[in-house]
Amino acid sequence: MDGYRFEIEMGVRDYECDMQGIVNNSVYQNYLEHARHEFLKEVGADFGEYAKMGINLVVVRAELDYRFPLRSGDRFAVGLNFRRESVLRFAFYQDIVRLPCRKPVLRAKIIGTALNGSGRPEIPASLGALLDGGAEGETMETSV
Amino acid sequence: MDGYRFEIEMGVRDYECDMQGIVNNSVYQNYLEHARHEFLKEVGADFGEYAKMGINLVVVRAELDYRFPLRSGDRFAVGLNFRRESVLRFAFYQDIVRLPCRKPVLRAKIIGTALNGSGRPEIPASLGALLDGGAEGETMETSV
Amino acid sequence: MDGYRFEIEMGVRDYECDMQGIVNNSVYQNYLEHARHEFLKEVGADFGEYAKMGINLVVVRAELDYRFPLRSGDRFAVGLNFRRESVLRFAFYQDIVRLPCRKPVLRAKIIGTALNGSGRPEIPASLGALLDGGAEGETMETSV
Amino acid sequence: MDGYRFEIEMGVRDYECDMQGIVNNSVYQNYLEHARHEFLKEVGADFGEYAKMGINLVVVRAELDYRFPLRSGDRFAVGLNFRRESVLRFAFYQDIVRLPCRKPVLRAKIIGTALNGSGRPEIPASLGALLDGGAEGETMETSV
Repeated sequence: MDGYRFEIEMGVRDYECDMQGIVNNSVYQNYLEHARHEFLKEVGADFGEYAKMGINLVVVRAELDYRFPLRSGDRFAVGLNFRRESVLRFAFYQDIVRLPCRKPVLRAKIIGTALNGSGRPEIPASLGALLDGGAEGETMETSV
Repeated sequence: MDGYRFEIEMGVRDYECDMQGIVNNSVYQNYLEHARHEFLKEVGADFGEYAKMGINLVVVRAELDYRFPLRSGDRFAVGLNFRRESVLRFAFYQDIVRLPCRKPVLRAKIIGTALNGSGRPEIPASLGALLDGGAEGETMETSV
Repeated sequence: MDGYRFEIEMGVRDYECDMQGIVNNSVYQNYLEHARHEFLKEVGADFGEYAKMGINLVVVRAELDYRFPLRSGDRFAVGLNFRRESVLRFAFYQDIVRLPCRKPVLRAKIIGTALNGSGRPEIPASLGALLDGGAEGETMETSV
Repeated sequence: MDGYRFEIEMGVRDYECDMQGIVNNSVYQNYLEHARHEFLKEVGADFGEYAKMGINLVVVRAELDYRFPLRSGDRFAVGLNFRRESVLRFAFYQDIVRLPCRKPVLRAKIIGTALNGSGRPEIPASLGALLDGGAEGETMETSV
């Protein structure tokens, strides 16, 4: 995957490594979530603000392919593409690559939705507009 | 899925909940890993001991379906079934259910392998024997 | 310190260990917090419920003496004593000991308070009553 | 405290916030550790490399004063000063301030030592030299 809509650079922190000396498998989900939230913020949708309004952005399904482990001292980038998958679901295609060589570390597809105050899936129109906004030609997939 | 080969009961700790008041998506991987390691210990394979020998048990692929979020105060069980998928891969089928009602919370398939001292996939014969040991009739899938 | 008012038993989870093979220094605060919240629940004060009401129970000061590191596979107990230190502050004296030998692992003093909806320290009378309830003879220190 | 020997800028990640909407008390220890390790790396001492050699840099005592909570979206700096306290102990004085206003968030004193292969405190001469190196006039306190 090339031409990410959003990319963020980060560094491994030593406490994220486990007794094998490599970043623990769950920590990559932290990295991916942080990249998604920074992307959301950039398009004008703040995770924390939605939470305060009682709208919870949640992960419905995660597929993670671990290619090569990150270690203490490594720097890496998280690239992200976004696609509206249906009325109630959106997908983040996320790659982690080690810097500076861009060696593939992890490839992920994260499906998310929003839950309204009563816990039912409902993507607010305002959020949908923000997410679809910059993704020209990608709205073809939005019908269920 | 019924009839788990291994099951462990745990409780949500408040620091595992995020600002939405629900357990953060990455924490479920912690729960799943802990259940796998307790299962491994039960069959006689200690994750930490393998790490000391330079054999790293790693996740190759994770598929996680999030059904219903856990919250502060919830108790839950992690059920686990194991299948040797190939010479170099083993699969853990793991379900998290909320207690006492056993409401489905998360369903996961975690593919793992072992990396030897030089970082190449190689499942030690001793580990293979321990893992396959109790899984009668499941070794049909081990040839690749 | 003997005769804890509350004690809880837990086990090290492998993801809590860092690349040194020992439990990371920050994780002990997780253990201590979990023990405090379980204690609070036992006396009838639920951390999550207070949070929903806009009352945040927060740590003001933590003193942690690390005696001996916990490792993969260790079981341990967190013992807790409580003292109301002033109108606005309460103290938790917490020890972690490795089981079954009760070898000292960590000794901590955690000072906490409650913040009301406008972020100012204020311990609700109901909470104060619950906390002081079972602590016979310890209320001498409550005056500021 | 002014004139830090080392300072690093970081941002709150949403998964670090708990159900109160503020950064969980244990996470500040992660921030502090990351700043210490980056400082060590800058003076030429790599935490991970020492761990591989069987030399564990560990925290002996931590004192943390929580002044003001960090929240989702906050940026902050961790400032650090270092003092050799004795033959076997070194101290990190660390402040966290919220940016850009430098509002005090947390003040900490972290006492550390090194454990050799047999688990006994022993600060390698090479590490001592690196740590003392840039700290003109601060070596007065090293004798005990």
